[in-house]
Amino acid sequence: VTNPSDSGAVDLGAVLETVRSEIRPYFGKGRVASYIPALKRVPGDKFGMAVALTDGREFRVGDAAEAFSIQSISKLFTLMLAMSTIGNEVWRRVGKEPSGTAFNSLVQLEYEKGIPRNPFVNAGALVVLDCVLQRTGERTADVIRDYARVLSRNFSVDYDEAVFASELKTAHRNAAIANLLRSHRTIHHDAEQLLALYCRQCALEMSCLDLARAFLPLAHAGVSPSLQEAILTPRQAKRINALMMTSGVYDSAGSFAFRVGLPAKSGVGGGIVAIVPKHCCIAVWSPELDRSGNSLVGTAALELFVQLTNLSIL
Amino acid sequence: VTNPSDSGAVDLGAVLETVRSEIRPYFGKGRVASYIPALKRVPGDKFGMAVALTDGREFRVGDAAEAFSIQSISKLFTLMLAMSTIGNEVWRRVGKEPSGTAFNSLVQLEYEKGIPRNPFVNAGALVVLDCVLQRTGERTADVIRDYARVLSRNFSVDYDEAVFASELKTAHRNAAIANLLRSHRTIHHDAEQLLALYCRQCALEMSCLDLARAFLPLAHAGVSPSLQEAILTPRQAKRINALMMTSGVYDSAGSFAFRVGLPAKSGVGGGIVAIVPKHCCIAVWSPELDRSGNSLVGTAALELFVQLTNLSIL
Amino acid sequence: VTNPSDSGAVDLGAVLETVRSEIRPYFGKGRVASYIPALKRVPGDKFGMAVALTDGREFRVGDAAEAFSIQSISKLFTLMLAMSTIGNEVWRRVGKEPSGTAFNSLVQLEYEKGIPRNPFVNAGALVVLDCVLQRTGERTADVIRDYARVLSRNFSVDYDEAVFASELKTAHRNAAIANLLRSHRTIHHDAEQLLALYCRQCALEMSCLDLARAFLPLAHAGVSPSLQEAILTPRQAKRINALMMTSGVYDSAGSFAFRVGLPAKSGVGGGIVAIVPKHCCIAVWSPELDRSGNSLVGTAALELFVQLTNLSIL
Amino acid sequence: VTNPSDSGAVDLGAVLETVRSEIRPYFGKGRVASYIPALKRVPGDKFGMAVALTDGREFRVGDAAEAFSIQSISKLFTLMLAMSTIGNEVWRRVGKEPSGTAFNSLVQLEYEKGIPRNPFVNAGALVVLDCVLQRTGERTADVIRDYARVLSRNFSVDYDEAVFASELKTAHRNAAIANLLRSHRTIHHDAEQLLALYCRQCALEMSCLDLARAFLPLAHAGVSPSLQEAILTPRQAKRINALMMTSGVYDSAGSFAFRVGLPAKSGVGGGIVAIVPKHCCIAVWSPELDRSGNSLVGTAALELFVQLTNLSIL
Repeated sequence: VTNPSDSGAVDLGAVLETVRSEIRPYFGKGRVASYIPALKRVPGDKFGMAVALTDGREFRVGDAAEAFSIQSISKLFTLMLAMSTIGNEVWRRVGKEPSGTAFNSLVQLEYEKGIPRNPFVNAGALVVLDCVLQRTGERTADVIRDYARVLSRNFSVDYDEAVFASELKTAHRNAAIANLLRSHRTIHHDAEQLLALYCRQCALEMSCLDLARAFLPLAHAGVSPSLQEAILTPRQAKRINALMMTSGVYDSAGSFAFRVGLPAKSGVGGGIVAIVPKHCCIAVWSPELDRSGNSLVGTAALELFVQLTNLSIL
Repeated sequence: VTNPSDSGAVDLGAVLETVRSEIRPYFGKGRVASYIPALKRVPGDKFGMAVALTDGREFRVGDAAEAFSIQSISKLFTLMLAMSTIGNEVWRRVGKEPSGTAFNSLVQLEYEKGIPRNPFVNAGALVVLDCVLQRTGERTADVIRDYARVLSRNFSVDYDEAVFASELKTAHRNAAIANLLRSHRTIHHDAEQLLALYCRQCALEMSCLDLARAFLPLAHAGVSPSLQEAILTPRQAKRINALMMTSGVYDSAGSFAFRVGLPAKSGVGGGIVAIVPKHCCIAVWSPELDRSGNSLVGTAALELFVQLTNLSIL
Repeated sequence: VTNPSDSGAVDLGAVLETVRSEIRPYFGKGRVASYIPALKRVPGDKFGMAVALTDGREFRVGDAAEAFSIQSISKLFTLMLAMSTIGNEVWRRVGKEPSGTAFNSLVQLEYEKGIPRNPFVNAGALVVLDCVLQRTGERTADVIRDYARVLSRNFSVDYDEAVFASELKTAHRNAAIANLLRSHRTIHHDAEQLLALYCRQCALEMSCLDLARAFLPLAHAGVSPSLQEAILTPRQAKRINALMMTSGVYDSAGSFAFRVGLPAKSGVGGGIVAIVPKHCCIAVWSPELDRSGNSLVGTAALELFVQLTNLSIL
Repeated sequence: VTNPSDSGAVDLGAVLETVRSEIRPYFGKGRVASYIPALKRVPGDKFGMAVALTDGREFRVGDAAEAFSIQSISKLFTLMLAMSTIGNEVWRRVGKEPSGTAFNSLVQLEYEKGIPRNPFVNAGALVVLDCVLQRTGERTADVIRDYARVLSRNFSVDYDEAVFASELKTAHRNAAIANLLRSHRTIHHDAEQLLALYCRQCALEMSCLDLARAFLPLAHAGVSPSLQEAILTPRQAKRINALMMTSGVYDSAGSFAFRVGLPAKSGVGGGIVAIVPKHCCIAVWSPELDRSGNSLVGTAALELFVQLTNLSIL
């Protein structure tokens, strides 16, 4: 049995090439997100993957440098921002446990009197954003974007205005959630203002390389190797990994943990970020989604990657 | 940063002594399970912990050799039995995802037409037991006990008849679950027969040492080092670890993953089994429970253990 | 506008003949209950209707003297018995409001901590029966049968043993309900004992004529004209009529109130009892059921009857 | 037993005086609605009652001519408008059955894919309003007000702008409902526009006398005696009475049917409208509410009124 600590010896460049070659049969089996035109027109056969290691090395393959809509992966940025600015107060307004229901359900939120189950269901992400908003006010959209830029060391990272406008136009269910939160006073800002910010954060465009770099601190006890700076405390990094492990991939935490065995956060743009604690951050992108809303090819690629590298933590 | 693979170098005997010493302040903060007399009269200050490593070494402290009621930890035995006898058919009758609701809830079961969310909620455990029953028939209670005996290498492991009788007498809610499953044809055997078997399996008495030995294969890709035999396939072992990670500790998967960061299964008798994949199996016992039904002192002990050994996988 | 009080002038015999003739096109549009063989084999084209007036007159048509399985209509007998023996204590253990969910749902029961929404959902009927049982003990089955005999003035009324045995054998969901009630301590007797009694009460066989006579006191402020005796207080009779109006016909209270406009209780055997307060009791029977479980032809017959007689109360 | 048709003989003026005198002990036992300032400051000891008979006579007592906020009673106006303009299409977008859940719940709406259970829960009223809006467009607010004016023969009936503004400002939960409806495409207009209209309709100010006159057609097979015109078909009037009987008084349909025994619609402003089919319309107002949101004194007054007049239909 190869130990994770030995994986430095594995030629990750060759592994990524093998993954790219092996996942071909999976294309065409999922469906590109179609609820807004801007996502629908992304070619389904895109595929990119990037790995950033805590020792500074980086590997990539395919469309790893092409920016895509990160969607719910942005919930990691706002959660990190909220935890590093207001700290544990976040947990007075949002839970830490798997929801067992759809990411956009109102049922559990009503039964649990407006406290979202975790920061990754839409209700929870809205509350987290409300926490950020109370610190950064009108500059919030800029703060989130700049945070993504600094962490990814890519200052061309930006919002896709077309995606933002489309999202906002069709965000009826999220508007329902925001208003229900407001009626329970879990959020302190205007529902509409918050909703617009939320649609904006989901419209961040980043590449696999950007993401692998940006979330590497989660694999490194909160420290950014490139910035040589603690972005989060070790406990905060572990908290986020725990949340990703139990609630990061929509309704598929159990299946994903079995197949991939890594904490991860996915988005309906087809991106997935996965963490190998103490070792590396992996980002993969392929737009076709499985029934749960996770990238179908991306999940297969991560599964193969951990098989080839023995990096699964389970 | 110490790597898990280096933890062999840590003096685990000394670690366990430190844990025993440090967790003292936690006693008296939880409550011993009181729904049946046999559990209620166990002294709350009991504490035992045992570690079995894949390399064959073992460490223990406190009441690690004292048998206690393993309760829901027994769900691991039946799941392992079901997976190794009927294989993937199990997953046609039970799901793999966190439930988001109480372990004994009927609501989700009704909404989801009799398919339990995972094998660790009571409904799921009943279905798993029904799967075992269809293979082993009238010998099932013996088969489960013998399986626990062989895996723990302790042939005095047995059912506590008083606990069994008490459980059965107060098992109204589980009887409701079994009958609801029957009405949906998810179980094929008589609800009463199944319920009696279920109460029996929960009444298994084992020590921390027994448990650490018995579940070591889950840390070793399915292989029992002492038996030199594959109890499960590597994939089956990983599947069970994934289920423990996302659903093993009642409503506390997220909090437990954060504090301990290991796949684990708990029981209301106060036992917890945790797996460090590729490394070791840890069993801890202390009867006082937190609000979710997990051992309060046991969780604190595991948290401290992974801090001292750096064995958290997150 | 003809007033109800004038309907004595209407020739009810002729009305019933018209109804029988007009409802012919409805046959074949519903489905005879098939969950037990004994109900399934009843010919779908049976039709009977009987009217008992508070002034002592009686009218009938078709198979009005043929006994059939009254099923849930029996919930009226046990409710009347419970109210007249233990009085308002019933309402500490069962609610009075429409459920909004299926008659055999466990969801609401779990959310509302074991207090059934009303006496006509299965959970509520079990609680009512438990109330009766605490008064009449081992004689309960005889007491219920004798009550039905006395009220209907038909001493050949009895349980159908084949129906009883079939019901009991397939009563998994009701067993789940009874056990859930027991876990909440809403019922005080053994779940199995209660379930057997419940299946027995549902197996009462009576004719339309029997039923029209038996429930006439509900139209007469609680007084039986034939027995010249108060079976219930006027308030109790009104309470039952109110419950029938809002919860008597499964999930169809609103539609039934619109079409028929009378308080009524139906059973899956195809019987419906309807009350015209201060005027008469109507019983109809035809085995084919609509999607809600009410007699399809029976509902149409009642609708036509109130149109022809102007007896709707709405 | 006095028959309803005889109640003309009862001196209704004297009855109303008796009611006013007898209900005094009920004051102070409920609570005036406090969620908006404009309702909160209404004196709790207000009491008015008016009866309009199909034969043209009218009776009143107390503050029967004082205008108050009719709130949910306005749902009757919009339902009547929708039924008389778009007819049965309404029932493709809203159900007819009791909800069994709170009037402002989102749970059932989500489970039932955006089809509200009935026109009197908030979600249903929003859909009904959406139906009206598609016929009357920008003039809708005027159309509703004018409809209320014509039916009540009071051309000073108007919206209370302060109540409207307050409602709109705190309407987070209704905004959530409107947006959830929009996400299911049950409503065709903008959620915000609809919400504003809804808050406006609830802010109609009318007196008991206005209401008794306005809804008299529901007691008269749809015909307005004063206008000598069919406002609704007889079937439509019966449909609305059926809905009021099963769903008109929030969570208290069963209790209200028992105590009062008449179809009714209440509002949190403390008003209740009750119908005695074929006979009269009664309106009562007293601001203190019981736990379900119905006027506590008003319900007691109606209960007493039907006792004194024998007008209960149950």
